[in-house]
Amino acid sequence: MTNWIKELQSIVGDENVLISPDELLVYECDALTIHKRAPRAVIFPTTTEHVSRSVKVLGEQGIPFVARGAGTGLSGGALAEAGGVIIELSRMNRILEIDWENQRAIVQPGVINIALTQAVATRGYHFAPDPSSQPTCTIGGNVAENASGPHCLKYGVTTDHILGLEVVLPDGRIINLDRHGAVALGYDLVGLFVGSEGMFGIATRITVRLTRLPRAVKTLMADFPTVEAASQTVSDTIAAGVIPAAMEMMDQATVRAVEESVFASGLPIDAAAVLIIELDGLPVSVDYESSRVVHFCRANGARHVIVARSEAERERLWAGRKNAFGALGRINSDLMVQDAVIPRSRLPEVLPEIYRIAERYRLRMACVIHAGDGNLHPTLCFDGRDADELRRVDAACKEIMELCVRVGGTLTGEHGIGLDKVKYMSLIFSEADIEAMARVRAVFDPRGLCNPGKVLPVHRCKAF
Amino acid sequence: MTNWIKELQSIVGDENVLISPDELLVYECDALTIHKRAPRAVIFPTTTEHVSRSVKVLGEQGIPFVARGAGTGLSGGALAEAGGVIIELSRMNRILEIDWENQRAIVQPGVINIALTQAVATRGYHFAPDPSSQPTCTIGGNVAENASGPHCLKYGVTTDHILGLEVVLPDGRIINLDRHGAVALGYDLVGLFVGSEGMFGIATRITVRLTRLPRAVKTLMADFPTVEAASQTVSDTIAAGVIPAAMEMMDQATVRAVEESVFASGLPIDAAAVLIIELDGLPVSVDYESSRVVHFCRANGARHVIVARSEAERERLWAGRKNAFGALGRINSDLMVQDAVIPRSRLPEVLPEIYRIAERYRLRMACVIHAGDGNLHPTLCFDGRDADELRRVDAACKEIMELCVRVGGTLTGEHGIGLDKVKYMSLIFSEADIEAMARVRAVFDPRGLCNPGKVLPVHRCKAF
Repeated sequence: MTNWIKELQSIVGDENVLISPDELLVYECDALTIHKRAPRAVIFPTTTEHVSRSVKVLGEQGIPFVARGAGTGLSGGALAEAGGVIIELSRMNRILEIDWENQRAIVQPGVINIALTQAVATRGYHFAPDPSSQPTCTIGGNVAENASGPHCLKYGVTTDHILGLEVVLPDGRIINLDRHGAVALGYDLVGLFVGSEGMFGIATRITVRLTRLPRAVKTLMADFPTVEAASQTVSDTIAAGVIPAAMEMMDQATVRAVEESVFASGLPIDAAAVLIIELDGLPVSVDYESSRVVHFCRANGARHVIVARSEAERERLWAGRKNAFGALGRINSDLMVQDAVIPRSRLPEVLPEIYRIAERYRLRMACVIHAGDGNLHPTLCFDGRDADELRRVDAACKEIMELCVRVGGTLTGEHGIGLDKVKYMSLIFSEADIEAMARVRAVFDPRGLCNPGKVLPVHRCKAF
Repeated sequence: MTNWIKELQSIVGDENVLISPDELLVYECDALTIHKRAPRAVIFPTTTEHVSRSVKVLGEQGIPFVARGAGTGLSGGALAEAGGVIIELSRMNRILEIDWENQRAIVQPGVINIALTQAVATRGYHFAPDPSSQPTCTIGGNVAENASGPHCLKYGVTTDHILGLEVVLPDGRIINLDRHGAVALGYDLVGLFVGSEGMFGIATRITVRLTRLPRAVKTLMADFPTVEAASQTVSDTIAAGVIPAAMEMMDQATVRAVEESVFASGLPIDAAAVLIIELDGLPVSVDYESSRVVHFCRANGARHVIVARSEAERERLWAGRKNAFGALGRINSDLMVQDAVIPRSRLPEVLPEIYRIAERYRLRMACVIHAGDGNLHPTLCFDGRDADELRRVDAACKEIMELCVRVGGTLTGEHGIGLDKVKYMSLIFSEADIEAMARVRAVFDPRGLCNPGKVLPVHRCKAF
């Protein structure tokens, strides 16, 4: 056994270091299964000091490393490139402090997203970011990818809920970044760190904002004869100044997969598109806003508009949406989930074009959309053992990305660039832009040991 | 005349370069008049290319420079340290584009904050950040300082409203930073730039979010027999889940100064503290929320609670608050406005302590507070010609800062660190934290020519 592994064992304990190929297999991919990289080892630190000492040992050896939470990412962001070691933070899962008066909490990075909400719900609070992987994903992962879920339409993305970070820098030093309440002080290094995809260091303590639970919630489901009609309803609602807590669209392929699964929630399988719209706030405003939304749905030709009459009905509607990928995964051997963003106003024109691209490449596609903010998840279904199909998936993804960028959109809303979208960076950024990013990264990680191979095209990372 | 001045004249035109000492006098300070630094020259570019070519000329000579908007800053941030040149952006004041469908606008940095709101109000929008200097200050200055005004309580700070930036780097290169809609892509360089106090480059085009005007607005004034009672009302309101659009406190000294000025708005001069509370949203929710706020005011012993019955009455209440500094300035030769932030829950305990500090140093003090987010503006009144009084102001400011930091607060909410608060940075940040900031700055400005002497203690800027 090499010396550095013994050193890691002495830091975190023998039982907290995995090195056998069998055990490492679990860590070779994330939820986007098409990229696979087996790590050289996986370690499970439980303290900030463990993390700091471990990265120092790895630094001495020049071994790259990457922090990982629950592995629910969808861009290959938490894979160990280049023979790296995974620093698995799932055992740093304690809520360290709750400051009720100032509505904030301090958590370790391995705390499961929903566990924090559960811990504060009895006193009327929640942690607002809610990715679909909420029952599994970690807050550290949310910070790395700035992944925020459907409710970011009203409540803002993850970075809006992060007040401070304790960070182990790639050289092992520990720094504290703090937004000092509602306002940033000087350079906003917290904002810089959030969404940096694990390339600037490892957050070991996270101070988050707690948000009051709304007094009232109303969840509606409406089904439409065309995708365009559903898109227009979204535009009309936002244009009228109503900001729903969430506004989600599922297309027919998605609805059918959901209805065939255990998450069936009674959605109409013959609809071209289904919207799930949630309104929250004071009871009086929820009533008013939902009547407006129902009006827009009907005016755009919705066949049915159903309002959940109980918490159980509400949860059933959301279960269908939040488990859409699981339902699609059940009936397809592989899925390629894309994560483009387009200006909301372009939805009615872009969506049909995306379907045409899939058709041209003879690929089945299902589409889930955070429609309120124009964040599309076109999901291509394929069999990874079929080389020709894989090539077609790749070509279709590229065309979809180019289309979205052409209409003023971008590459990712919440899944990150990771490994998967590095090849598209030049669609958006000039060499000067990418150089600026690479230089900023080099400030925190001059040796490029912390999650290399992600976000930045490799040729740019050599320059510094 | 030196060659570099001729070169600048050939770029922006002779009439757009000031060099005579008389003309430069206007630019030697900002609204915090205690710091004075005369620039070597002031230039008025009107295009991005002007800015880019000018900083190249200055770079060749090793001459530092600083971008300046309306000069309304309160931390000495836009002063030309070290014999620098001011790049005055007030003539880059065009609104370049308004995208109604996607609710955004592209503006030049010299656009006056309120001019943008006026340009979009007829179609039901506004630019949400509203510093008190709103009729004068520029959007470029708001970006530099992340200055946001009273309504950030509900609408978020300036950075939340900035979607993209065209930036002239200190070496003259032009880059585009883009948040691509609601979500950041990769490293959030826009967020890093906003609030960097003009030290990373010069923003020459700013893409901002437009926000729907609320359907209804209700503005209340309540007066209290003690500062503690007013503070408790603020805490009770927020704890009940009501988020007012703004929640401002003025103490007795401020109220008296306002009532003696042309901005007199009928505030009770015998009250220990006055709250101005604004609620906005749907008419039904504004009615409900205002009834809750009235209840909390009365429960905490408010003597009167007055609701503005017309837009004119509402404007009169706000005129008093927004011109409070002007009113104080009228009756005092000099003002030292501080800008500390404390956790909201500590207001009732910290405020009396701040008054005791002022008293101990025999200084008159007035206090204006963005009470909803704990952002205090204690304002010390003095005569700058009295050396002893100046020393006492300095000592009192230091004690106030130390107190605020001790209770978990910080140095600035929106005025920035600038020149004025560099000396306090070590109260908050470790050497490692400051080094990280200095390194990030060096990425954008390795030669340290762009607004030197601000934010970072000088000894840290030499290291890179």
